[in-house]
Amino acid sequence: MTAYGEGMRLTAFTDISLRIVMRLAVARDEELLTTRTVAQTLAVPYSHAAKAVARLVELGLVETRRGRGGGLWLTGAGRNASIGGIVRALESGGDLAGCEDDPPCPLRAACRLRTALAEAREAFFASLDPITVESLVASPTGPVLVLLGREEGDLRP
Amino acid sequence: MTAYGEGMRLTAFTDISLRIVMRLAVARDEELLTTRTVAQTLAVPYSHAAKAVARLVELGLVETRRGRGGGLWLTGAGRNASIGGIVRALESGGDLAGCEDDPPCPLRAACRLRTALAEAREAFFASLDPITVESLVASPTGPVLVLLGREEGDLRP
Repeated sequence: MTAYGEGMRLTAFTDISLRIVMRLAVARDEELLTTRTVAQTLAVPYSHAAKAVARLVELGLVETRRGRGGGLWLTGAGRNASIGGIVRALESGGDLAGCEDDPPCPLRAACRLRTALAEAREAFFASLDPITVESLVASPTGPVLVLLGREEGDLRP
Repeated sequence: MTAYGEGMRLTAFTDISLRIVMRLAVARDEELLTTRTVAQTLAVPYSHAAKAVARLVELGLVETRRGRGGGLWLTGAGRNASIGGIVRALESGGDLAGCEDDPPCPLRAACRLRTALAEAREAFFASLDPITVESLVASPTGPVLVLLGREEGDLRP
């Protein structure tokens, strides 16, 4: 079960993945971003960022190249991807409540709440469907992300 | 941050609270339900159920009476309450992502995603607004709940 005292949350995995695509979406052409620099900029643990990057590559949203001149890039598909689509792909599904936890909920076989919650989650995703990665980094978010990039050590104007 | 490998979830607190109102909604007139029997029926820890009951009483959805003949009841307001309203009241708010975690997200001051996620959560709640506690326990859930009640020891037909 999730912790007490907080509201509903995306998983940390989805949260980090979304931060990464937003950061990559404002990368300047000459920037060489790596998983390590992106993790630092976004204040997330490197190991978590690396897992998220691997999944984003699987989904065709991010490309990586190793070695000199290597790094991370958002693909064209990644730039135009729907946030609703990304969140659907990253949230592994399952139930919004602990229906199948151990012990499972005794009501699960005939629960109307379960269906209602699944429909509510669909409404949540649908609300994010029209929003693209690109649109999230339009002003004011974009300039803030670029400034963060400069704090990584590149202080050229 | 929430655990990896699961999808978005309601909090355990909300989950348990919803199970409790559903169980109380199908209580027979002569039934004397207590927090302990309800917790057992719903396979949730007693201490969690007790916290949820206290909050449901605060919200005017549940009434309790101590001593002989005491127990738990759903109020009229509780029976007609909207699931959307209950979930809004129980989920403590905050952000859907770790915007203000320690360390906070560096993008939080100018994040379009944060607003988009807040709007998506509102769509989630709105989807649950038309659903009442009463409607959730209509067939098929109601009879299952009643059978569970009988498993508590009351085997009269």
